[in-house]
Amino acid sequence: MRFKFSILALLLEVIIIVLFGIFVEYDNSDASQTLYPLFQDVHVMIFVGFGFLMTFLKKYGFSSVGINMLIAAFGLQWGTLMQGFWHMKGGKIHVDVKSMINADFSTATALISFGAVLGKTSPVQMLILTILEITIFACNEHLVTEVLQATDVGASMTIHAFGAYFGLAVTLVLYRPGLKNKHENEESTYHSDIFAMIGTLFLWLFWPSFNSAIASETIYQIKAIVNTYYSLAACTVVTFALSSLVDQRGKFSMVLIQNATLAGGVAVGTCADLSIHPFVAMCIGSIAGIVSVLGYHFLTPLLASKLNIQDTCGVHNLHGLPGILGGIAGIIVTAVKEEVRQGVRFTPGMQAAALGSSIGIALAGGALTGGILKLPFLGQASDQNCFDDSVYWEVPEEEKQHEIHSNNYDEHSRFEATM
Amino acid sequence: MRFKFSILALLLEVIIIVLFGIFVEYDNSDASQTLYPLFQDVHVMIFVGFGFLMTFLKKYGFSSVGINMLIAAFGLQWGTLMQGFWHMKGGKIHVDVKSMINADFSTATALISFGAVLGKTSPVQMLILTILEITIFACNEHLVTEVLQATDVGASMTIHAFGAYFGLAVTLVLYRPGLKNKHENEESTYHSDIFAMIGTLFLWLFWPSFNSAIASETIYQIKAIVNTYYSLAACTVVTFALSSLVDQRGKFSMVLIQNATLAGGVAVGTCADLSIHPFVAMCIGSIAGIVSVLGYHFLTPLLASKLNIQDTCGVHNLHGLPGILGGIAGIIVTAVKEEVRQGVRFTPGMQAAALGSSIGIALAGGALTGGILKLPFLGQASDQNCFDDSVYWEVPEEEKQHEIHSNNYDEHSRFEATM
Amino acid sequence: MRFKFSILALLLEVIIIVLFGIFVEYDNSDASQTLYPLFQDVHVMIFVGFGFLMTFLKKYGFSSVGINMLIAAFGLQWGTLMQGFWHMKGGKIHVDVKSMINADFSTATALISFGAVLGKTSPVQMLILTILEITIFACNEHLVTEVLQATDVGASMTIHAFGAYFGLAVTLVLYRPGLKNKHENEESTYHSDIFAMIGTLFLWLFWPSFNSAIASETIYQIKAIVNTYYSLAACTVVTFALSSLVDQRGKFSMVLIQNATLAGGVAVGTCADLSIHPFVAMCIGSIAGIVSVLGYHFLTPLLASKLNIQDTCGVHNLHGLPGILGGIAGIIVTAVKEEVRQGVRFTPGMQAAALGSSIGIALAGGALTGGILKLPFLGQASDQNCFDDSVYWEVPEEEKQHEIHSNNYDEHSRFEATM
Repeated sequence: MRFKFSILALLLEVIIIVLFGIFVEYDNSDASQTLYPLFQDVHVMIFVGFGFLMTFLKKYGFSSVGINMLIAAFGLQWGTLMQGFWHMKGGKIHVDVKSMINADFSTATALISFGAVLGKTSPVQMLILTILEITIFACNEHLVTEVLQATDVGASMTIHAFGAYFGLAVTLVLYRPGLKNKHENEESTYHSDIFAMIGTLFLWLFWPSFNSAIASETIYQIKAIVNTYYSLAACTVVTFALSSLVDQRGKFSMVLIQNATLAGGVAVGTCADLSIHPFVAMCIGSIAGIVSVLGYHFLTPLLASKLNIQDTCGVHNLHGLPGILGGIAGIIVTAVKEEVRQGVRFTPGMQAAALGSSIGIALAGGALTGGILKLPFLGQASDQNCFDDSVYWEVPEEEKQHEIHSNNYDEHSRFEATM
Repeated sequence: MRFKFSILALLLEVIIIVLFGIFVEYDNSDASQTLYPLFQDVHVMIFVGFGFLMTFLKKYGFSSVGINMLIAAFGLQWGTLMQGFWHMKGGKIHVDVKSMINADFSTATALISFGAVLGKTSPVQMLILTILEITIFACNEHLVTEVLQATDVGASMTIHAFGAYFGLAVTLVLYRPGLKNKHENEESTYHSDIFAMIGTLFLWLFWPSFNSAIASETIYQIKAIVNTYYSLAACTVVTFALSSLVDQRGKFSMVLIQNATLAGGVAVGTCADLSIHPFVAMCIGSIAGIVSVLGYHFLTPLLASKLNIQDTCGVHNLHGLPGILGGIAGIIVTAVKEEVRQGVRFTPGMQAAALGSSIGIALAGGALTGGILKLPFLGQASDQNCFDDSVYWEVPEEEKQHEIHSNNYDEHSRFEATM
Repeated sequence: MRFKFSILALLLEVIIIVLFGIFVEYDNSDASQTLYPLFQDVHVMIFVGFGFLMTFLKKYGFSSVGINMLIAAFGLQWGTLMQGFWHMKGGKIHVDVKSMINADFSTATALISFGAVLGKTSPVQMLILTILEITIFACNEHLVTEVLQATDVGASMTIHAFGAYFGLAVTLVLYRPGLKNKHENEESTYHSDIFAMIGTLFLWLFWPSFNSAIASETIYQIKAIVNTYYSLAACTVVTFALSSLVDQRGKFSMVLIQNATLAGGVAVGTCADLSIHPFVAMCIGSIAGIVSVLGYHFLTPLLASKLNIQDTCGVHNLHGLPGILGGIAGIIVTAVKEEVRQGVRFTPGMQAAALGSSIGIALAGGALTGGILKLPFLGQASDQNCFDDSVYWEVPEEEKQHEIHSNNYDEHSRFEATM
């Protein structure tokens, strides 16, 4: 069993290196140096932000931060190729800091989908998901930006909505009736919740960089930075207010603070670099906070019980609904006010088409991917082994008081890990 | 009870958005792009630095990092308005990366004061404190920089001393005799102390950005960076030495390493961008380390027992005394050597006036604010519920061995949370 | 006993400040501002990256992150002087952002060596090691870059191999037969392993900045960034694959993921800014991953049992072997293709001499240093007190279930700390 993952990963890496040898060249653009700090912010978001945001589960921290790293490191290479094939010059893919930003972006889709299936899939399954999702993402992104010529500077539609609905389709296909009742490991501990806040904060802080990194000119970059800054701030205050409001005893919920505070960054993405006025950005952020809190509180339990969609991290509320909201905001803004970037005038029709295509292709691609991941020889973990690092990781034996748990670990280890 | 916080927060957010709609416009300054990396460093300091620095308490990590985020996200919006009203052009407040840096700065005052009252105030009280403190801060800052024309590039006086003495005045007015004997929750655990080091390090590392971000020219920015870098390094070595020296068994104390190592950044702030010579910066840092260690070791217990000033995080030693030291350094430096910035010659008299006004206004403002926070309908937590997240947060039930604690949680939850 | 550390540290700080007063001046180079974001990335690597990477031990987190901070803060001052003495202009050392990057770099050597002796040395010993190692490092660096005129932009040889073999020589001289059988504290816990991942990720993310920071021109800087980015990505995928492959049950090992994923950054260092083509960078990264995993799995136990080299963090596998690999890659690349930088043509002969000198001087310097650290009045901790923070730190008493441990702490505290 241990060879399945190793051989697949090594094989893929060899293929990628060969493709890099054939197709990839250095580009030496002048803009690279000023973009580099933005790249680093995005880079931190992908590896620390997404990775630690998912460490909230009490026994799944190694996988959250570790498999997140694996997916991202693998995905950025694959993404370089998939996005590069759409923009070859002289038969070559040119890489520079801007293409590195785009490569990091492409991994975000797979990481968002990882959040939906967190705790229920194997590393082998995640490698396959990453290949398929990034390939399909690159096609949809090309469709949205080049064919439809829609604007989506912060990728509300092409990354957030796409990644969320792709992941939801996968988790629907991989539905596990045995997890209908909450799994005993599907909980946080006091310290795992604080680890998750590391992820939340680095995402929150660097989101202005995410939304502005690929803006076409400095002036639009600054607009995207300002809009995202205020959208997130407003979203955060509203999230705290609603978190208290929806709780019977008026207490804050860490799940909401960790996640819904970020919805403002997602929702303002599509029109971040447009001249929407800071107060409109704050309205978008506030609405995103409301939608996200209500989603976590009312919708997620409903989706799980009625529609068999088991969304571990609630990506629907953090990326799905706010992503749609961002798409709608883009439609309204381009309908109200003419905006031109590099000779292209954005139209509400094309914005709507972009939103529709992103969701539609994500759902279809996710369903297809889910079907492939279900193939029996990929070896899923049993329901009982879900949300447990010890299936795929050497886990340290804790001190005496944890004896009962470490017995569990020993039990697992009698079997080969199912990778 | 749960409606008090929610409605206040939502109401304030609506007011802020309306004011933004009326007054706030984009500014498109050229300097924005080169300032952006400095802004991001400051941004990390405010949310990760301050937030995690306060996670040292064993049962107050959610509030430390969470309420810190709330205050900062709310405060940066309020700060944009309060600072902006002093610098309107054509009846409009113009926002860009520089104003975002200043907005983040303004929240630092409230976060420093939060450190003084940590564990003893409700989220409602903290929202009110934030509004009042940032408003008063913006007035004092205007007085110091525009009226008195004093220099304070790293804000030793206007942020650090101001925030500390404001907080100390608040905590004095809110004095709780019931906490005279150390509360059982007012302790750290092994891991909470390591979480706090995340805060310490990100503050320490990015402090050169804090002290240089609003310097008027690149050459002065570099001076501020160099001076802060060496001041902090010297302060750190001295702090370790003194931490061992003041302990009976020669052991290091985490409280001192987490906090006093940062005093060098505070103290060099006022004259960071002046040509003071690196070795002078190191002397300032070393003295700050000594003052801060002695403050934590001897003064804080004395303030609590004799003067009824209960300073949870010891902000007096990290921000108060080093802030005064910075102000004094500024007086001496401007007396010894003529320094001119943008046509203004700094004088020791004006520097002294700036220091006096910062402390005086902070004490008066803090006392006033403390009086308001004491109003009975704001509903303070009981002494026994201090330093305990479970009063305001859903806290995960820990594993079996924590049964006694989770029983406590259940007990709390029989009552409505007092927010 | 408590005075030994305090007086040494204060004395050294006074000496350094005096030397700064005599020799150090501001430099006002134009390049400083664009370098500053790279400096900050390196700065985070040194303090957060190295510091947290070593927090994996269950009872040694305070020392890992705390003494790391002490060494780095002290070392960067000493490094400024030692490197500066080789490049004085008019009898003065000029400091700016570039010299700060170099000062941070110089501390990395001592921090790598700290990894080899982690848990077995006192703060006094570490101060002495830092002085000696940085002094010797500055000489070897001068030899490599100025005399031999070899290229080593990412310092695979002069920092990584140097720091590793210096540390290995020290730990060999300080060999403790009593630690032949694994010490009960030489283990991680679930959360300490997650803390260590904070270190891993910030090192991994900012490594492109490390390898490009001192490149001579923007175009070479971008090359170094791109090469390091892809080298690390390939290394990470290969590390995951091999980690599973070498484990009997196919499980991932946190030690490998925390460390071997970084080997690609080390190994690509020497030729990072050369036109090696991205796919060659990925090959170097992949080989580094393989070498590092095999080193951790097979070589480290062998070194400990057969050669009496007790390498706590396995720096030989993360810095030593990949550093040599980087040196060899440099020899091959300069042999295959002519590369000129600032009028200097690199030759394979000089590259080989640079590699040899780095390792040779490190081994000799480390052996000498180890001999000095063994002097009896420096007071080493007993074998039984190794890997235990409570010897040098006030450690919080944990909750009831840890009673047995806190009894141990009390026992220690009956004696003076041996510093």
